[in-house]
Amino acid sequence: MTASSLSLPVVLPIENSALHKKIQHALDTKTKPVGSLGRLEALALQMGLIFNTTTPELKQAQMLVFAADHGIAKNGVSAFPQEVTWQMADNILQGGAAISVLCKQHNIDLTLIDCAIAQPVAPHPHLISKKINPNGSADASVAAAMTTQECIEAIGLGIETVQSMPGNCILLGELGIGNTSSAALLLAKIANLPIEECTGAGTGMQGEALQHKINVLSQAISTHAHVNTPFDVLAAVGGFEIAAMVGAALEAAKQRRVIVVDGFVVSSAILVAAQFNPHVLDYCIFSHRSFERGHQLMLEQMNAKPLLQMDLRLGEGSGAALAWPIIESSCFILSKMASFSEAKVSTAF
Amino acid sequence: MTASSLSLPVVLPIENSALHKKIQHALDTKTKPVGSLGRLEALALQMGLIFNTTTPELKQAQMLVFAADHGIAKNGVSAFPQEVTWQMADNILQGGAAISVLCKQHNIDLTLIDCAIAQPVAPHPHLISKKINPNGSADASVAAAMTTQECIEAIGLGIETVQSMPGNCILLGELGIGNTSSAALLLAKIANLPIEECTGAGTGMQGEALQHKINVLSQAISTHAHVNTPFDVLAAVGGFEIAAMVGAALEAAKQRRVIVVDGFVVSSAILVAAQFNPHVLDYCIFSHRSFERGHQLMLEQMNAKPLLQMDLRLGEGSGAALAWPIIESSCFILSKMASFSEAKVSTAF
Repeated sequence: MTASSLSLPVVLPIENSALHKKIQHALDTKTKPVGSLGRLEALALQMGLIFNTTTPELKQAQMLVFAADHGIAKNGVSAFPQEVTWQMADNILQGGAAISVLCKQHNIDLTLIDCAIAQPVAPHPHLISKKINPNGSADASVAAAMTTQECIEAIGLGIETVQSMPGNCILLGELGIGNTSSAALLLAKIANLPIEECTGAGTGMQGEALQHKINVLSQAISTHAHVNTPFDVLAAVGGFEIAAMVGAALEAAKQRRVIVVDGFVVSSAILVAAQFNPHVLDYCIFSHRSFERGHQLMLEQMNAKPLLQMDLRLGEGSGAALAWPIIESSCFILSKMASFSEAKVSTAF
Repeated sequence: MTASSLSLPVVLPIENSALHKKIQHALDTKTKPVGSLGRLEALALQMGLIFNTTTPELKQAQMLVFAADHGIAKNGVSAFPQEVTWQMADNILQGGAAISVLCKQHNIDLTLIDCAIAQPVAPHPHLISKKINPNGSADASVAAAMTTQECIEAIGLGIETVQSMPGNCILLGELGIGNTSSAALLLAKIANLPIEECTGAGTGMQGEALQHKINVLSQAISTHAHVNTPFDVLAAVGGFEIAAMVGAALEAAKQRRVIVVDGFVVSSAILVAAQFNPHVLDYCIFSHRSFERGHQLMLEQMNAKPLLQMDLRLGEGSGAALAWPIIESSCFILSKMASFSEAKVSTAF
């Protein structure tokens, strides 16, 4: 199998000038000064355009947490041992993790997709077990993280996962010890930035430990110096969960679902997806700017304006879940507020 | 009646070093890298200290929208006519306003307190009708907005309102054409700042209209040049709803309730309340930084770090309601997440 066997979902832009005007008019005649709900109004407009209506409604929100292990973790690039990936997968499914608590709070269905966790995860109704490689990815500092075939399979797994989900919106989360290293490498390769500027603390690397992480990632950059196409970069330095999220995002956008993007690692998948088709960004809501060093640079690459700045650096989808009710609010503004004429309120002078 | 007859609730600080350590330990042993939930953790700590527990729980959230008219509105300082105050009061009660929609979304009880709206508001189960002056406040550009007695009564109304409410948390909102003028004047007087730096667009004043607003407010500053004490400043340039919120905040803090602060106008009430007792700030969560020009300066005066920056400038309590689920999330992190030992997850190296 070669990269040319890759078949990706086709994504169309959301812009529609006639509908855009209608939605803007609806917003402008709601009982509030024009524009006074700020970014909530821009969000409402995006929701309306995605769902092709002036009264957008979010249905059956699905949090998809893609999980995999990373060979590069063997080099001590994380503050936590690799076994934490499966332990946290279990904790997420048992309801004890931050993402479990936040999804329960907001009535968001949570599914964990085991793309390549290096240990067995106990069966659970909310687990999709599809290990593409039972050992996780290869060590990207010395070899390609995934073979071409593995990377294509991982993208396909993301596509299939979205196809199997109800509703019209997905939230993307991830789990994988070592995956901020993959995200930093993807940013450096795709945006052509120095790896030091892209590398941050991850789960808690500081001082010498952070410098060690940068050294390992610099080696990965050298190893893959001649890798160029988005697909080959993804296979070389990405990870199974990241490749799956690339597929998930493209399929969700094809189906005109809203995509709520979590932090640094999920954003790296969107960065890659946008290389395949920039219109995927029309469907994305960037939930927050994380504390992770490279995230701001990554967001700038996509002209993305995150909703929250809460200094989060947990991953799992936690920022996406935290921002979720604000996204719901934007829909309610359009669909439930009264207009000046309905409420018999005087307009501005 | 003189200002010396003013009797204010006594507010105690929340700091408690033994409990602080316990809560911090609880946060640090949850299944996540230490500190990785960023500002959500700081918020959780504040909740725990306010409620004196390591498992804080928010109960029966009450959105209190204090409403009044402002004599200064006669001078054309708002983009909307004064009648919009009672029309919007009615719209809020009928469920058509942004705050109505957001409170319904989050299951927050909403009460509108008519402190001095210059027209009758139709009776409604969620209306507290206690007009202290049926004409609203006097024109602060030429006279004191409230008499000493009126201002004391308004503070008392806020105190009584909180006393009559169930639950352990209040969200403060407001309504009153012209009240960003009062808030700007309070900021200028209390922080000793030039009125031009404190004055913004309000509901939509730009260019010449904004300059006119600044001119009117400059006149008010001259009129009250020799007014100094926080109480006298409040009576001179505040408003009935603002004075009521001063009382409401102090009483809520006395009762160790969480106080969720909306935008520029609510913040001006907190600025005054903090002059009476700075510990009131321990109980406050500043929900957002509004688009209104003076708000950033006002927040700095209180060392307040707002949760959201969504360019809102609506008032009503809309920003407070929007931030509400994030505040709930902070409690759930403490009370519902598993610890490393409970979940059998390995800790960092």
